[in-house]
Amino acid sequence: MIQTDINRRSLGVNFNERGEAEVAIWAPLQENVEIILQDKQTIKLTKDDFGYWKTCTKEIKVGDLYKVSLGDDKVFPDPASVSQPEGVHGFSKAVDVQQFKWNDSNWNNLPLEDYVLYELHTGTFTTEGTFAALEGKLSYLKELGINAIEIMPVSQFPGGRNWGYDGVFPYAVQNTYGGPEGLKHLVQACHDIGIAVILDVVYNHMGPEGNYLGAFGPYFTDKYNTPWGNAINFDDEWCDGVRKYFVENVLMWFRDFHIDALRMDAVHAIKDFSATHILREIKQHVNKLMAATGRTHYLIVELDLNDNRFINPLDQQGFGMDGQWVDEFHHALRVTAGEERSGYYSDFNGLVHLAKSYKDAYVFDGQYSPHRKKTFGIKADNNPGKQFVVFSQNHDQVGNRMLGERTSTLVSFEMQKLMAAAVLVSPYLPMLFMGEEYSEPHPFLYFVSHTDPELADAVRKGRKAEFAAFHSQGEAPDPVDEKTFEESKLQWDLLQQPQHKTMFEYYKTLISLRKQEPALKHLNRNQLNVEINEQNQTLLLHRWHEGDHILCVMNFSKSPQPATLPTFKNEWKKLLNSAESIWNGLATAEDRNGAVV
Amino acid sequence: MIQTDINRRSLGVNFNERGEAEVAIWAPLQENVEIILQDKQTIKLTKDDFGYWKTCTKEIKVGDLYKVSLGDDKVFPDPASVSQPEGVHGFSKAVDVQQFKWNDSNWNNLPLEDYVLYELHTGTFTTEGTFAALEGKLSYLKELGINAIEIMPVSQFPGGRNWGYDGVFPYAVQNTYGGPEGLKHLVQACHDIGIAVILDVVYNHMGPEGNYLGAFGPYFTDKYNTPWGNAINFDDEWCDGVRKYFVENVLMWFRDFHIDALRMDAVHAIKDFSATHILREIKQHVNKLMAATGRTHYLIVELDLNDNRFINPLDQQGFGMDGQWVDEFHHALRVTAGEERSGYYSDFNGLVHLAKSYKDAYVFDGQYSPHRKKTFGIKADNNPGKQFVVFSQNHDQVGNRMLGERTSTLVSFEMQKLMAAAVLVSPYLPMLFMGEEYSEPHPFLYFVSHTDPELADAVRKGRKAEFAAFHSQGEAPDPVDEKTFEESKLQWDLLQQPQHKTMFEYYKTLISLRKQEPALKHLNRNQLNVEINEQNQTLLLHRWHEGDHILCVMNFSKSPQPATLPTFKNEWKKLLNSAESIWNGLATAEDRNGAVV
Repeated sequence: MIQTDINRRSLGVNFNERGEAEVAIWAPLQENVEIILQDKQTIKLTKDDFGYWKTCTKEIKVGDLYKVSLGDDKVFPDPASVSQPEGVHGFSKAVDVQQFKWNDSNWNNLPLEDYVLYELHTGTFTTEGTFAALEGKLSYLKELGINAIEIMPVSQFPGGRNWGYDGVFPYAVQNTYGGPEGLKHLVQACHDIGIAVILDVVYNHMGPEGNYLGAFGPYFTDKYNTPWGNAINFDDEWCDGVRKYFVENVLMWFRDFHIDALRMDAVHAIKDFSATHILREIKQHVNKLMAATGRTHYLIVELDLNDNRFINPLDQQGFGMDGQWVDEFHHALRVTAGEERSGYYSDFNGLVHLAKSYKDAYVFDGQYSPHRKKTFGIKADNNPGKQFVVFSQNHDQVGNRMLGERTSTLVSFEMQKLMAAAVLVSPYLPMLFMGEEYSEPHPFLYFVSHTDPELADAVRKGRKAEFAAFHSQGEAPDPVDEKTFEESKLQWDLLQQPQHKTMFEYYKTLISLRKQEPALKHLNRNQLNVEINEQNQTLLLHRWHEGDHILCVMNFSKSPQPATLPTFKNEWKKLLNSAESIWNGLATAEDRNGAVV
Repeated sequence: MIQTDINRRSLGVNFNERGEAEVAIWAPLQENVEIILQDKQTIKLTKDDFGYWKTCTKEIKVGDLYKVSLGDDKVFPDPASVSQPEGVHGFSKAVDVQQFKWNDSNWNNLPLEDYVLYELHTGTFTTEGTFAALEGKLSYLKELGINAIEIMPVSQFPGGRNWGYDGVFPYAVQNTYGGPEGLKHLVQACHDIGIAVILDVVYNHMGPEGNYLGAFGPYFTDKYNTPWGNAINFDDEWCDGVRKYFVENVLMWFRDFHIDALRMDAVHAIKDFSATHILREIKQHVNKLMAATGRTHYLIVELDLNDNRFINPLDQQGFGMDGQWVDEFHHALRVTAGEERSGYYSDFNGLVHLAKSYKDAYVFDGQYSPHRKKTFGIKADNNPGKQFVVFSQNHDQVGNRMLGERTSTLVSFEMQKLMAAAVLVSPYLPMLFMGEEYSEPHPFLYFVSHTDPELADAVRKGRKAEFAAFHSQGEAPDPVDEKTFEESKLQWDLLQQPQHKTMFEYYKTLISLRKQEPALKHLNRNQLNVEINEQNQTLLLHRWHEGDHILCVMNFSKSPQPATLPTFKNEWKKLLNSAESIWNGLATAEDRNGAVV
């Protein structure tokens, strides 16, 4: 069995205390594996019992460029490369991941329950599209009140424009964003200002361009078919090397990059029938790391199975994930807010399902889903609120629309405010998508910069096919066109305009309320009541904690509606009314779209 | 969500209290489904919301022959047919499964812990190869001392000769064996004499000939690839109908055929990522049935995952299976007894692994398996002994050898006795394979009677390819040749010969000892100790229960070996010595191959 040292990276090229390069390339079925330096010098490697080709040498120095030869002119970048300064097809750069002047020893990760998340895409968050430019916005984010940024994947992808899910070097940090040094510097800056960093990682597939893993070893299996072709090999022959590759990846981000949490993409597409699921194995290793370092790290998953086995504790035979996204809360909220019931929205009826999601997190927890054409989900009654991440939009829900419209261009200003409140008063972890806090009108479109023309064309076509269910009109913007990328960038100068400024202040106030009010801050799912009036399209969310009570009155209709507040020994005191003129609303006291009292 | 009535069969053709036929054919994507009677009369069906085509009619009577038309000349037998009197391609026969004069109301299923299993194949167990002929052997089996027969699959398969794993009508009982009436009669006879009936069922694939399920609905999915092609659809779109098909199948065997337990074939090949695994759903329904009827039924699985999630209780997030086969005990025992370490045996080192299996059931519970080329299994420390079925041979371990040799022709008479004891003194449920109790020398070969010549040829070729790992010599017997089937039959007249008679008496004595001795009978895994001496090839298994202790001394070497018995307040008393002359052994008291003291 391959042991994993939690204290240091073992794969690829690493440097020991004596400054020697320790090399380990997993290629169990290859006959001859060598390192080739940029100056053509070759370094012989020797295979160990587990299929790792190894050496310890002074010939490779920090900063050297190298590739790996598998014989017969098969020369590729290192699968565990940390830096690809020339992109996915170019040389790997030898990096000492332990070399960085960390200055965040006073930083303590926040309790998960306190997280207010903010999802962003490095390339479009700023004009420059870099980690350095992102750092310039941290004080803005701090002012907004969020305390955890969730960075869309930064693993090296083809070209300079990509959401990140086409990454092919899980260990390498995108060169155009600023590479590994840039990411570390950003994490340091976040910790300085009191913001946690969540990194989005993709362990369910590899991108289509620059994916050389298959040449090195059995990273893939044909036992399972996925939307992206053969599945990553987590349970077939030789899977130990593949599993270690991803376990060490998690450990590197936490240990060497001081990342606070991972958001693991679409773990339902990880096919693993091993007795120990890879996510469980990852959690076991992270527990060891945390015990050794005293730092706290969270594992959050994107999960489309409504199966709380993933988030149940290890000692309850779960996989031990700390949290998961709940897309269903989003779908229910969006339909309640007027979204057309087509495609996957067709399963959601609006208010009833929104109320269910407030109470049960999962909307489908054992019912028949007409869209999925099967019975779906189980109950997650005993999982605390902090295990669920909710949102009114995210990169997928915006960007997977043909025209990438944000909520800002789809619903009224009043409805935007109501949706924001619906998320921020929930008993779950709220997540914003970059720009929603000031009602950014630019779309967030799907964009790529594949260099292979056939592939680029295939992406264009695939994009079109995807929209059959949505019956949208017009042409999908060309994902390969640089303009599509540019149009997806945030327009920071809009914050100077009153309407946008107001929205920002509104979000700021809501986030502040959430942090201050005990009944909002404590995510106790049992101290919660939801009442709806379908005819009026109103929802009353009542939450409490010890003596404190909060009532959230939501009116999703287009006109004023009466609301009967539950009687209570003390009188209700209004904390916030989103429809009031201070928030550019049109409402009188009785004429409100949403209120927290 | 489709509800399942545990009280009666709903699929196919059934008869209500008024004698009307109630028809339900699942064909959710078909446009026009009709019943066609043998006399060409057609009966219209109407589709319900869940894709079941239904009617209630007096036009179909018990005994009528019918097929199902899907339009366009697509006319097939009923997927839920209980009787195929003309084979897999012919008419289905309308059967009232509730019509049988049961006379076993005094029968109570045995506690699982008390089971002594006996696996048999109906077609080769007797010369006639029928349930009726099998009944003639029940008093013999009763005398032997086994109390549960495990019948290899009886679901209708192509032709008359098949192990049963090529069945294509999970509800139909093989016509050449005696059909559904014959099976019920057999169960009745078993219960009369005090023997439980375990039925082997196949829910992981369908046979290659006569498999019309795909024409009716999405019974298969291309999400997963199995050794037998596309997997059965347990978690893809439309899976509800498929899941119900198998859930109702389990219920029918228990409720309408009074089967005591199922042995579910190769459940590791059931691919199901639903939040509720199909086995868990089956268990939930069986629990309801047992509560309603007051009868007890067990679910035992063949499982090659070493994952106790399958056998853990429902309330511990397990799938709730009552037991599982442990092939690894067999492999360890066989290697200890001299089996060549090739193929899957290569992972087993003999004595050390046999000792591990006595203690831990699973040999691989987290170690790297060179044969599987991956780390395999988890610990099953808290699962009671009654959850594990062990054996020194079974239909697979015999029949999957190229020449189908039983242990009787591979090891000495002395070693056969030792292997029998190794199984029968284990803290697990022992299982015999038909004929081993009298040292039957005939092989149990692989045989089929597919009528499609191309398919027959493919089976021949596949059979040859399978033996690459075994490096056996010579030609594989032709599975399609009727001689191969005939040669696999038991030779009952051998029981007249002294050596065979002696073996029978030896088994009988061992089984009797197991039932009588508290330390053997109670399957407490914590009250057990194993010591081995690798040099001498001896193993001491010490088991106890309250004040009773049993010591089993096993000598796997070819010569006498010393054995130091643990000192004990009372002296050890010899209960049985397999090497003594009474068992046709050559041993003096010191010169023994195996002893239970």
